[in-house]
Amino acid sequence: MISGKEVATHNSRESCWIIVHGKVYDVTEFLDDHPGGSKIILKYAGKDATAEYDPIHPPNAITDHLPAEKHLGSVDPETVLKVKVEVSDEEKARVERMSKRPSLSEILNLHDFEAIARMVMPEKAWAYYSSAADDEITIRENHAAYHRVWFRPRILRDVTTVDYSTKILGQVSSMPMYITATALGKLGHPDGELNLTRAAANHGVIQMIPTLASCSFDEIVDAAKPGQVQFLQLYVNKDRAITKKLVQHAETRGIKGLFITVDAPQLGRREKDMRMKFDAEDPAEVTENKQQDRVDRSQGAARAISSFIDPGLDWKDIPWFQSITKMPLILKGVQCWEDALEAYDRGLAGVVLSNHGGRQLDFARSGLEILYEVVRELGARRGLSFPNEKFQLFVDGGVRRATDVLKAVAIGATAVGVGRPFLYAFSSYGQEGVDKALQILHDEFEMNMRLLGARNLSEVVPSMVDASSLSAHIVAVPGDTLYDTNYESMQHARLREVRAKI
Amino acid sequence: MISGKEVATHNSRESCWIIVHGKVYDVTEFLDDHPGGSKIILKYAGKDATAEYDPIHPPNAITDHLPAEKHLGSVDPETVLKVKVEVSDEEKARVERMSKRPSLSEILNLHDFEAIARMVMPEKAWAYYSSAADDEITIRENHAAYHRVWFRPRILRDVTTVDYSTKILGQVSSMPMYITATALGKLGHPDGELNLTRAAANHGVIQMIPTLASCSFDEIVDAAKPGQVQFLQLYVNKDRAITKKLVQHAETRGIKGLFITVDAPQLGRREKDMRMKFDAEDPAEVTENKQQDRVDRSQGAARAISSFIDPGLDWKDIPWFQSITKMPLILKGVQCWEDALEAYDRGLAGVVLSNHGGRQLDFARSGLEILYEVVRELGARRGLSFPNEKFQLFVDGGVRRATDVLKAVAIGATAVGVGRPFLYAFSSYGQEGVDKALQILHDEFEMNMRLLGARNLSEVVPSMVDASSLSAHIVAVPGDTLYDTNYESMQHARLREVRAKI
Amino acid sequence: MISGKEVATHNSRESCWIIVHGKVYDVTEFLDDHPGGSKIILKYAGKDATAEYDPIHPPNAITDHLPAEKHLGSVDPETVLKVKVEVSDEEKARVERMSKRPSLSEILNLHDFEAIARMVMPEKAWAYYSSAADDEITIRENHAAYHRVWFRPRILRDVTTVDYSTKILGQVSSMPMYITATALGKLGHPDGELNLTRAAANHGVIQMIPTLASCSFDEIVDAAKPGQVQFLQLYVNKDRAITKKLVQHAETRGIKGLFITVDAPQLGRREKDMRMKFDAEDPAEVTENKQQDRVDRSQGAARAISSFIDPGLDWKDIPWFQSITKMPLILKGVQCWEDALEAYDRGLAGVVLSNHGGRQLDFARSGLEILYEVVRELGARRGLSFPNEKFQLFVDGGVRRATDVLKAVAIGATAVGVGRPFLYAFSSYGQEGVDKALQILHDEFEMNMRLLGARNLSEVVPSMVDASSLSAHIVAVPGDTLYDTNYESMQHARLREVRAKI
Amino acid sequence: MISGKEVATHNSRESCWIIVHGKVYDVTEFLDDHPGGSKIILKYAGKDATAEYDPIHPPNAITDHLPAEKHLGSVDPETVLKVKVEVSDEEKARVERMSKRPSLSEILNLHDFEAIARMVMPEKAWAYYSSAADDEITIRENHAAYHRVWFRPRILRDVTTVDYSTKILGQVSSMPMYITATALGKLGHPDGELNLTRAAANHGVIQMIPTLASCSFDEIVDAAKPGQVQFLQLYVNKDRAITKKLVQHAETRGIKGLFITVDAPQLGRREKDMRMKFDAEDPAEVTENKQQDRVDRSQGAARAISSFIDPGLDWKDIPWFQSITKMPLILKGVQCWEDALEAYDRGLAGVVLSNHGGRQLDFARSGLEILYEVVRELGARRGLSFPNEKFQLFVDGGVRRATDVLKAVAIGATAVGVGRPFLYAFSSYGQEGVDKALQILHDEFEMNMRLLGARNLSEVVPSMVDASSLSAHIVAVPGDTLYDTNYESMQHARLREVRAKI
Repeated sequence: MISGKEVATHNSRESCWIIVHGKVYDVTEFLDDHPGGSKIILKYAGKDATAEYDPIHPPNAITDHLPAEKHLGSVDPETVLKVKVEVSDEEKARVERMSKRPSLSEILNLHDFEAIARMVMPEKAWAYYSSAADDEITIRENHAAYHRVWFRPRILRDVTTVDYSTKILGQVSSMPMYITATALGKLGHPDGELNLTRAAANHGVIQMIPTLASCSFDEIVDAAKPGQVQFLQLYVNKDRAITKKLVQHAETRGIKGLFITVDAPQLGRREKDMRMKFDAEDPAEVTENKQQDRVDRSQGAARAISSFIDPGLDWKDIPWFQSITKMPLILKGVQCWEDALEAYDRGLAGVVLSNHGGRQLDFARSGLEILYEVVRELGARRGLSFPNEKFQLFVDGGVRRATDVLKAVAIGATAVGVGRPFLYAFSSYGQEGVDKALQILHDEFEMNMRLLGARNLSEVVPSMVDASSLSAHIVAVPGDTLYDTNYESMQHARLREVRAKI
Repeated sequence: MISGKEVATHNSRESCWIIVHGKVYDVTEFLDDHPGGSKIILKYAGKDATAEYDPIHPPNAITDHLPAEKHLGSVDPETVLKVKVEVSDEEKARVERMSKRPSLSEILNLHDFEAIARMVMPEKAWAYYSSAADDEITIRENHAAYHRVWFRPRILRDVTTVDYSTKILGQVSSMPMYITATALGKLGHPDGELNLTRAAANHGVIQMIPTLASCSFDEIVDAAKPGQVQFLQLYVNKDRAITKKLVQHAETRGIKGLFITVDAPQLGRREKDMRMKFDAEDPAEVTENKQQDRVDRSQGAARAISSFIDPGLDWKDIPWFQSITKMPLILKGVQCWEDALEAYDRGLAGVVLSNHGGRQLDFARSGLEILYEVVRELGARRGLSFPNEKFQLFVDGGVRRATDVLKAVAIGATAVGVGRPFLYAFSSYGQEGVDKALQILHDEFEMNMRLLGARNLSEVVPSMVDASSLSAHIVAVPGDTLYDTNYESMQHARLREVRAKI
Repeated sequence: MISGKEVATHNSRESCWIIVHGKVYDVTEFLDDHPGGSKIILKYAGKDATAEYDPIHPPNAITDHLPAEKHLGSVDPETVLKVKVEVSDEEKARVERMSKRPSLSEILNLHDFEAIARMVMPEKAWAYYSSAADDEITIRENHAAYHRVWFRPRILRDVTTVDYSTKILGQVSSMPMYITATALGKLGHPDGELNLTRAAANHGVIQMIPTLASCSFDEIVDAAKPGQVQFLQLYVNKDRAITKKLVQHAETRGIKGLFITVDAPQLGRREKDMRMKFDAEDPAEVTENKQQDRVDRSQGAARAISSFIDPGLDWKDIPWFQSITKMPLILKGVQCWEDALEAYDRGLAGVVLSNHGGRQLDFARSGLEILYEVVRELGARRGLSFPNEKFQLFVDGGVRRATDVLKAVAIGATAVGVGRPFLYAFSSYGQEGVDKALQILHDEFEMNMRLLGARNLSEVVPSMVDASSLSAHIVAVPGDTLYDTNYESMQHARLREVRAKI
Repeated sequence: MISGKEVATHNSRESCWIIVHGKVYDVTEFLDDHPGGSKIILKYAGKDATAEYDPIHPPNAITDHLPAEKHLGSVDPETVLKVKVEVSDEEKARVERMSKRPSLSEILNLHDFEAIARMVMPEKAWAYYSSAADDEITIRENHAAYHRVWFRPRILRDVTTVDYSTKILGQVSSMPMYITATALGKLGHPDGELNLTRAAANHGVIQMIPTLASCSFDEIVDAAKPGQVQFLQLYVNKDRAITKKLVQHAETRGIKGLFITVDAPQLGRREKDMRMKFDAEDPAEVTENKQQDRVDRSQGAARAISSFIDPGLDWKDIPWFQSITKMPLILKGVQCWEDALEAYDRGLAGVVLSNHGGRQLDFARSGLEILYEVVRELGARRGLSFPNEKFQLFVDGGVRRATDVLKAVAIGATAVGVGRPFLYAFSSYGQEGVDKALQILHDEFEMNMRLLGARNLSEVVPSMVDASSLSAHIVAVPGDTLYDTNYESMQHARLREVRAKI
């Protein structure tokens, strides 16, 4: 039993202890690895951090990430001083903005959630969710690629009723999409990934559980309704025994598909997120360290949560996966037809054509563009047509409208993964936000199936889209500033002097 | 005879009666369907709404859309309290802006009407006219597509006189364009569609009467001059008897062509319009309902006016149309060559290649792009050349200049439909605005025929345009913000210190 | 001899007389045709307008454009009241700006003249020079087209001396460019076109004299130095006798080439110019006329100066031209290979591939793009290679740099016409401006010949450019506003709080 | 021994003497050639300029550039008046900004150095480094070209360790890049090029020493660590004896490769730099000279430092180079496959495909685009594959990320030159900045090799990139201002009235 008084003496960067749920932890060496920056921990150095810790972290976060020898034991609760939390002006303003959210009925599309989330989320959480690799070209390309594909709708088909349900890996889904895996759900909302589980149940869609969830795997599975389908996204551990245990546990718990992430041997640099971290540091310290500072603090969050990921994962490991589970195996993060073909030849159940939401390799192509190439080449080389039950193609990244999904389906995808929009939905409105987001997608699918002249997804065929511009990666010739600023724009007819439109 | 006093007790969302032209209506259940939002009705709950109702609605609007059992009978006029209309500051400012319109002689092109209309129209009317589907990509693409087609004019041809008149479905038109069907004309001007009828007569062009006109069909036909040609746009009713009656009545009244809309089994979501509606709601109410609100209020206007449209319309119905009328039948909203070919093979008189002004399926292609494909494929497969008297091709959407029309004619269109510009013309200047708009088009046609070196429309041939970029749907690679903001733009030579140009 | 008193009674729109150089003119019917608007004339109604008239008009402007019966005779000078000219605040500010021009040594490129001219020219003169047809797409395309052609320079060639002189229609030119014809030079500077004549002599380049010069043809020829070469641009008069007289007079005076304009059967609408005119009208009057106003005032300037142009000019007229002069005949305004071929087959000396500086048909292609097509087709069909002494190709429009010219030469042009930049040069600095502009071009040619690795123009060959993107007329897919405004741009590292960079 | 008093009488533009390190120089005729403008010299006319001179100039600058007869001898130090340096407000603000630089740990990428350098460098130094030719199209194209090449990464390869070291001309380099030659390093930092030498040693990369370094050649070689590899960039002197001496001296000093610049027979006009110079002139004087001013002052800096460069350099000179040195010979500035082939056929060791950082011929293509063409043509014509030890291809210009370099390597480059980013790094942080920049590149290479699935550079192959859009030089059709300003953008859902986000 440690006394609060002793804990209180470890209140500096040199020696930093904190109390969480009555336990004392020495986090001195963890300071630079903390995803949220060291500043926030140092604020609680020598003190009880439970109230600040709870809303953000999964219960086992500190015990999992801190070596056992840093777990110092229990504190005598009588001796601990109460911490008076001071709320910053920024935080007060944020809470006020939260109280001013428009009603959900004013949310008309998935973009709207992002606009509200940006206003009401803590800045660091926003930065973590929204950031991507390097110059963030690929994250935007993911969305832009959909804009290079146009529709060729059909008319005079009886579309009184339309059916856009499908089967994903043999499991029924009410729409040709699923909720893809995204990390750290509690950054946006205290219920984290459970928001997704519950809303998915309401709308008959499938959730892919992330390895790096804020909630524990079992919490998320427990929250599912009977019969509700879930998949698991897997980061493969350097220690294969851990991975084996996780996979087999998942199978036991009824998981219906295993999506092995193959595009993240190392987690990407996300500079917007890193930039934010400096605001979370003690500024004095940042200044002091200056040039001497050789510690690479820049990838704090990623390193803290991802150091276990095995960069040595190889095609050679595939048979081992096939030996430890009967779940369908899908590779998540395939980015060219050559690897999709390899996956097919090795008997996998499918691939997700994805660049990890633009968070890994910048200038990686969009899933949609890769899909087009994979369909063409696997057709030519193995005689496959898509969508294909035996070898399913998925894409993710950049989706905001049901029309985006329908374009991918027309080209050959079985379904499309959607991630960030649901994060923004629960970050701004909790589970009801996710429900609304899924309802919007339902409405959009119904409308657009009708307008396409497709009564079910088998009628959403390649000839319904013109994808001929999909691979054009155009950058305009740099502007001629001198000419352009000399040019005087055309003007409309104007009202005679009048007070400005309000 | 109901007393004004009793009516006055039904003054809430729970029970809402209003008086129009001395009749009492129970509109409680209609509140959420009202195109203009519930707020404006609730303002007149229990009161006489005639003064507010008249300038906006067609005479039979309320009787047509409200079930008979909600028509409660006449009110005793002596007992009705006068409503004092309070004009909002916004409305006062709008009326002032209306008084400051520039003279018509300052209007130089069709764009100008839109610029003025945006200033002088009520915001909701502007939102209804200007809005389009989803992210409004297609509405803008409709205009942009014309910019990807360039001219190859001919020289040294005697163009002292040029003739740009043509025949549309056998009817003379002074220009290769017609006024296409648009709904709810009274939102912009009390005379609604009659503005179009009268100006069309003055300029020898053909008006297509919309099913969803603010004025009644017969009012519009009655307003025509002797010999003036009109077409009818048709939304097909679920109750075919109603449609049959309407079509045969139209034929009797001398309508010369029937344009069956095939791109709107369900009316599109127009978010700009929907967004506006929330401002028209009682804000308190919006807040209360919040999450519980499962009523889909979002498509109010569209649902109210379009619920009768049959989503089951099918190619199978075509022979029936051919059996009930001798008018030429044209499909409006064809969007690929396959359906144009089908229409030709089934003996129809033509097709309008159109995406409904961008109001239905976003990322539908422009009519101009479809035209190019239809001309090519029907040439290759049926040996047709265009323009073709037997099977006429029309396009609409995005036209602002006579040069736009001439591009479509060169590619193979018989004529081009123009819609919104005329709405904006009468919304800002009434019939004289439409007259001026048509005069501008005349002037532009005359000028540009000369500059093209075409003495009549048969000389406006495919080799006069370069359409090779028409199908390029390019999205630039996302910008490199860091590089671009580092780049310091070139500067011109500058005046030495001097007061700024006025 | 008319008395000033009588003149003074004709001081209204109903009857408007003015005095110029002691003569009385009745301009009542000319008011609406006046290029500068009626307002400025009405200001001098009944008065002596000489001081205002002189700096802008060619001496014979009023006598040429006003029917003889409106020449009322001489005024008794003793009886004329002096007009006190009031200088407006705008004009005072403009004159002040003129005094603040940077020194000519600060002018680094042709763009700079335009930037200064825009600041120091009267607004109406600027509007006339800078305006173009319709939406002004083609005027900007003229410049943009050069940006789609890129260089493939050669190295390790001894470029100690480079020679970029050439022969145009057999006449020596120090550079592969000429000063093309532009109208109304006195709008920008009292010496008008003489600025060009004098500077052309200094720099060994050829001036093309415009039919619509502010100075008379003979003034301009008289200003030439002995041996200085001039061409003549010709608008063909409906009265061929006038044209014959002009052409034969030109030949007598030593003109070395006749450029017959074929792209202007009617002068284009230039809305920027027209918009400006309304500011020059009496606003009260504009308001009154309003809707009744059927007079087309919109093309005032163009009509006034161009009504004599024959829209009936035809290929049939070519032999007649060949019969009345021995000067080389060139068609100015050819816009497709078919017409260039026709010109070749009819024995003409060349063609100017031009769209009249974007002032006639909007969406006409750039001269550079047409050049590429003409070279290809006349090569394939007549075995010609270019540049070609027997049949010379010229382009004009959009040139601002010697590199622009060199691109055209590489593709096959003999020389390139430059117009507006010289107008801006003399409008801001008089003849010295034109001298400087030509000097800049000399410097740029010398530099860029070296950097290209070309010792003379015969070494500027097609393989020195990549023109494969020249015909791409791309319009980006309309932006996704909702997505784009949600996206938060990357930020650089920032200085810690510091006062802004000055 | 000259007296300070006598010197002090030569204090005007007519006769201007200055003292540097105790010597007197007559710089009257040099005033207009001074790279920094005449104003700054005139400030010290008749005075001791040492304190101002030292931080910017190489020790031998004045003695090398001023003819011997202008070296007037020593001054009597006792008689020289002390100059009191007045620091301008701009300079004070700049120094303050320098003190506010963020810590190096906040620098996340190479862009950041440029952002900071722009804030903390003297404006003239910034202008010299950042400027480029004409309209600065090519400098930006250099960067943009990389954005038209996209990755096709491979998965499931064991990337636990990745190796991105390579050999350049037989010399080991820790990364496939080198520090390319850039002039006048002391403009940015007192240690000039030595910053690069020292950091290159720390990171195992090769520095190319510029002919126009601020430090002397021997200073730079002396600063190298034992075994450190350096190359030499060579401007060939009109006096070949000087060149021979320099080359052979370099070989003696251990230089491992000679890069002969072939794209600069004359140094380019850089208008941003020239514009800046006018601020450095005596304004009164600028005004006076005005039109009479025939002296071409515009290329002051370039002329002063480059007048010795031989524009007559020719392929004929290559055997001579081969005769005077055994160092590998590389041509720097090759811009088309024809010249690359010639270089190969003449037995050279390689070529740098470069446009001199956009500073010479505007609209020259990017090195990356040329690389693609050279690899294709030398493959087809000589059966070569790249990278190739015998004939190495390099590119430079526009690189900001390791991914840029990897794209070039995939296409066939042996290594890529990086220039400006290192200038900005030492201009803002001295040598530590360059160290950090190189460390960032190391981190990016390691990360991106993993993400590409490449374990060493031989696995970075052509199929890893899609370069099919590389040659597209697109300029969008000019915007339709009237249409675009009429269009009202979509709006997100908004918070109810709330104070703005801080």
